[in-house]
Amino acid sequence: MESTVSNIFLANRSKNIRSSAIREILKITVKDSNFLSFAGGLPNPNLLNKELLNQSMEETILFSSEVALQYGDSSGYTDLKKIILEKFVLDEGVKLDSIMITHGSQQGLDILGKLLMDENTNVLVEDPVYLGALQAFSPYGPNLISLPMEFDGPNVSELKKILSEKKIHCFYTNPNYQNPSTITWSLEKRRAVANLLDEFGVILIEDEAYKYLDFSGIIYPSIFSYRKEKDLTFVLGSFSKIISPGFRIGWVIVPEVYKDSFNRIKQGIDLNTNQFSQIILTKLLSLMDINEHFSKIQTHYRNQKNQLVELLNHYLPEVKFQDPQGGMFLWVEYPDVRENELMERIMEKKVVMVPGNEFRLKESDSAFFRMNFSFLQGSDMEEGVKRIHSVYRDIIT
Amino acid sequence: MESTVSNIFLANRSKNIRSSAIREILKITVKDSNFLSFAGGLPNPNLLNKELLNQSMEETILFSSEVALQYGDSSGYTDLKKIILEKFVLDEGVKLDSIMITHGSQQGLDILGKLLMDENTNVLVEDPVYLGALQAFSPYGPNLISLPMEFDGPNVSELKKILSEKKIHCFYTNPNYQNPSTITWSLEKRRAVANLLDEFGVILIEDEAYKYLDFSGIIYPSIFSYRKEKDLTFVLGSFSKIISPGFRIGWVIVPEVYKDSFNRIKQGIDLNTNQFSQIILTKLLSLMDINEHFSKIQTHYRNQKNQLVELLNHYLPEVKFQDPQGGMFLWVEYPDVRENELMERIMEKKVVMVPGNEFRLKESDSAFFRMNFSFLQGSDMEEGVKRIHSVYRDIIT
Repeated sequence: MESTVSNIFLANRSKNIRSSAIREILKITVKDSNFLSFAGGLPNPNLLNKELLNQSMEETILFSSEVALQYGDSSGYTDLKKIILEKFVLDEGVKLDSIMITHGSQQGLDILGKLLMDENTNVLVEDPVYLGALQAFSPYGPNLISLPMEFDGPNVSELKKILSEKKIHCFYTNPNYQNPSTITWSLEKRRAVANLLDEFGVILIEDEAYKYLDFSGIIYPSIFSYRKEKDLTFVLGSFSKIISPGFRIGWVIVPEVYKDSFNRIKQGIDLNTNQFSQIILTKLLSLMDINEHFSKIQTHYRNQKNQLVELLNHYLPEVKFQDPQGGMFLWVEYPDVRENELMERIMEKKVVMVPGNEFRLKESDSAFFRMNFSFLQGSDMEEGVKRIHSVYRDIIT
Repeated sequence: MESTVSNIFLANRSKNIRSSAIREILKITVKDSNFLSFAGGLPNPNLLNKELLNQSMEETILFSSEVALQYGDSSGYTDLKKIILEKFVLDEGVKLDSIMITHGSQQGLDILGKLLMDENTNVLVEDPVYLGALQAFSPYGPNLISLPMEFDGPNVSELKKILSEKKIHCFYTNPNYQNPSTITWSLEKRRAVANLLDEFGVILIEDEAYKYLDFSGIIYPSIFSYRKEKDLTFVLGSFSKIISPGFRIGWVIVPEVYKDSFNRIKQGIDLNTNQFSQIILTKLLSLMDINEHFSKIQTHYRNQKNQLVELLNHYLPEVKFQDPQGGMFLWVEYPDVRENELMERIMEKKVVMVPGNEFRLKESDSAFFRMNFSFLQGSDMEEGVKRIHSVYRDIIT
């Protein structure tokens, strides 16, 4: 099939385009509701207050339909940017017009790839790395380089070595409860890396998708906040994990010197982000008590995480993982099995997780799986772990 | 400013990225409500039935919130695709899974640029050409070639000459009430061009954004319908002009051999189109009488067009234009003035139109302007024409 396509016409860059096992798995689980899925990164839609959402929609049509049903500014709806600046951007010195609204933060990654990455531009990424970033960047042909990670952030001396050896243009990172590794950078490492990036003049692409999903309500300062070279830092935020992925709304804090180019790229790719959703979301955010909401989702996710940790400790004491401080995933190593084999066998039992090699530039021999704990509820979660347990036992004995 | 940016880091392709005068003008007119704008391509939001929209929103939250507030399939929401196939795709042989939902048809153009265009890929476009297509394609670096147009479609012998002389990979066209020229292809030319494209193995990108905006309710068959090489044809559709641009929902009919690659690109750029809007739109379309709605908007736009034509005939008898059969624009030649001068002078009088050279690969010496008639109502439209009249008189006398 692939060969037929390339025989017709296909841009050269198409050969670089990665598919996502996650989304293929998601399709299977959508079609067959008997599947128990630890695969997706699906927030729980029931955590959103539907009455406030209804009120927001009514007010949108009643008072703002002429704006909501029209084209809009490529950089985003101003009142939404104001709320983002006021409630979600904790860094000093960010101006209203530094905020660009995107169709989910995934679109922010695509725009940054287009803006910053040529064929063979050296781009540093964490190992393992968020799959969506690989999908967004790869078509532009950059030379992706893996940075070894430790439990509390990058290996700083390794980072210094890489930066000294070759010109690195951009570094993409997801420093809070990283997807998939769940690693959260210590304050020391944030500061040390910020200094190194300043010293070597490296652009930082800081993805804060999980910033507000700490189980204890901690909010870590951005790496951006430690940098002197603010013009070399893009910070991405998202409403997908804290409000709903259904709206597809994220944002990017864009340095002054890049604003014009960023905005022109946004124009070319979709004119502007969905006004209808932007305005409903703006009303919803102004009606909500956002701190109360954070506390509600943090509690919910903490309980879900604790449940999965207990189940794994009980049924699968051999597996290894770092107990995360936030986010939606566990990053679990299954000793003494091959990743592919375990994956195939659990899918026969109608359970899915995401194989760790999906998140790596070079395949690892160890068997890691990303396990989501936000989606499966109560006995379904236990049933899923039991099925994995029985398959795993079967393989290793 | 530009030089500062490129001194930092900017992908080479960034130099190819065009800005849109339209959207810059739109910004000015949004900030200063005294401006009378013939510039945008803004549909009239009041043509949409708000009660049905409210009902669609309520039902979405009541019955479908778990789907509407979640991630979705990259290729789009199945029930929406079903309605598109049933009510908006008139061509035979199109299958449900050939339809890919995009964030406006502008996003379809971006995906096709990424999929099909390398540096120096030869891409044929109409002269003048839809500006958004230039913005979408240019970053990928294709070699754009202009095709001379006549009142009823391309100059066919010129097309044959171009196709014979060099390998053309793709041809992008907007064959109904083209933006900006308003040209509508005759059936003979649709057939003749389809045959030529088949003969030379050229991919057709057929943009049907205005298909349902004929003032007499005529629906022209697609060029696609005349082609034998269905695998070399992409057809783009949009809800922006017929329902609302606020939802940012369009679609692309994608040939079987390209489906997988198209879908992977869509994943990488934004995971999936806004589920929330897709589901509300699905409900809305199933509640609406779509033919009655078409008839209502066609009548409205015809009346608006007639009004602008009468005003131009009365106040500016010197200007030339082809009376369009549909769409939202007149494409007006102003004799004996320079385009830039007229543009600058009318903006001083707080009126805007889009200068014709925005839509051209090479600047023309003639002064053309795209004048939208769907947005300004009643006396505002007359006042706008009067202001242009006084400036134009001033220049030519």
